[in-house]
Amino acid sequence: MHTLTHFRLCPFSRAARLALAEFAIEPTLVEERTWEWRPEFLALNPAGELPVLQIDDAAPICGIYAIAEYLGDTPLLDDADSDASIDPEDAGADHDPDDTTPINCKLFPGTPAERAEIRRLVDWFNGKFNREITQELLYERVYARMQHDRTATPDVDVLRAIATNLRYHMSYINHLADQRRWLGGDELSFADLAAAAQLSVVDYLGEVPWENYPIAKIWYARLKSRRSFRGLLADRMPGTLPAAHYADLDF
Amino acid sequence: MHTLTHFRLCPFSRAARLALAEFAIEPTLVEERTWEWRPEFLALNPAGELPVLQIDDAAPICGIYAIAEYLGDTPLLDDADSDASIDPEDAGADHDPDDTTPINCKLFPGTPAERAEIRRLVDWFNGKFNREITQELLYERVYARMQHDRTATPDVDVLRAIATNLRYHMSYINHLADQRRWLGGDELSFADLAAAAQLSVVDYLGEVPWENYPIAKIWYARLKSRRSFRGLLADRMPGTLPAAHYADLDF
Repeated sequence: MHTLTHFRLCPFSRAARLALAEFAIEPTLVEERTWEWRPEFLALNPAGELPVLQIDDAAPICGIYAIAEYLGDTPLLDDADSDASIDPEDAGADHDPDDTTPINCKLFPGTPAERAEIRRLVDWFNGKFNREITQELLYERVYARMQHDRTATPDVDVLRAIATNLRYHMSYINHLADQRRWLGGDELSFADLAAAAQLSVVDYLGEVPWENYPIAKIWYARLKSRRSFRGLLADRMPGTLPAAHYADLDF
Repeated sequence: MHTLTHFRLCPFSRAARLALAEFAIEPTLVEERTWEWRPEFLALNPAGELPVLQIDDAAPICGIYAIAEYLGDTPLLDDADSDASIDPEDAGADHDPDDTTPINCKLFPGTPAERAEIRRLVDWFNGKFNREITQELLYERVYARMQHDRTATPDVDVLRAIATNLRYHMSYINHLADQRRWLGGDELSFADLAAAAQLSVVDYLGEVPWENYPIAKIWYARLKSRRSFRGLLADRMPGTLPAAHYADLDF
């Protein structure tokens, strides 16, 4: 049995869920509020950060960097030996025959140079995009009320700065999606999943100005219609409902 | 010819320099002040972040995540084909016969699970340690004056918070170094290099309370005495001299 300790709107947790779903692995999800600093959680990951993946009884794999590279190292479904934790037939049984997208992807496909480009973009989204947009937006719109004061309202100046940053990032996604089949190159990769995970949080909160970035929108729609995305689209955060179009494949 | 665009006290640039030096690769170093937002630099790395590695005429490899994994993917010295960019004899000629440490290491040695543990720690140092200590300390002690106001003085409350954070991190390093031969396990790995790179910046600024963490000190002394560390120990930042013991192997 696999367990993913996560938080519903944590973008790194979402990236891990997408990656696992691409391998048709459905872990048991355990929600953690990192700001409560529970000793049991800190024993699992001393950094106190999400997500944490537990594969059977093995040591926990902590953080999205280690998890993504681990899945890249050991694509569990490709593993033909007897330790393979998923019966390929079971995984296949859940596969819609009309769904022409593969049920898994290599997270870091290509040559070392192509992999470096994918990782540059993973770093862009998990680092820069998260710092400049998702983390700030989550704090203003969700965490401030959960962690400090139920009556807290977002700081409009901060929201305005986030919106400015977001336009810059959307232009970049639009540009990449215009130049390439997927953000990191010809093949779907973890760069797409990391980017989509971040954007899915911003989209849940209704802040993505899709109409101005039509090519980015098409790229996101392709990801959103993948089987691996379904779990994320079903998420509902008590106290913070998603934007009306959040789960629509035709948005 | 290889080029590393870096900044002398940037911990990520230092981690890249250590990793390259472990492979006996000596790139041409080009210093960049990212806060000047030079268009030529942004053309090289649109994220505007350091370090950036250029291997011959290939596309730039941007950021410490992509660089470290690239070096893990393609250990250049292990590469026996004719593209190998370093003549092994040349590399050997620079090797001190009395120096029993290997001239290179695998950056992510071991099984996928062992590699996941190494990457957890890389994330700890490049993420958490950097955010809670190095980045803040560099701003207070170096960048505020370089970027904004030559007469700026550090905020003592911030310095006190950094010192508190540092004690916690030093305890963790001490604990890891007590349990294992190297931080990530039995073998030297990029976890050690990432940790040492961060600490080397804090040590340059004279802020590491070594006397209270004797096992961490022994671990750092072992790294510091490696050939790969020499470049870092020779660094001098105009306007900010290093602590007196900074370059001493016996500190």
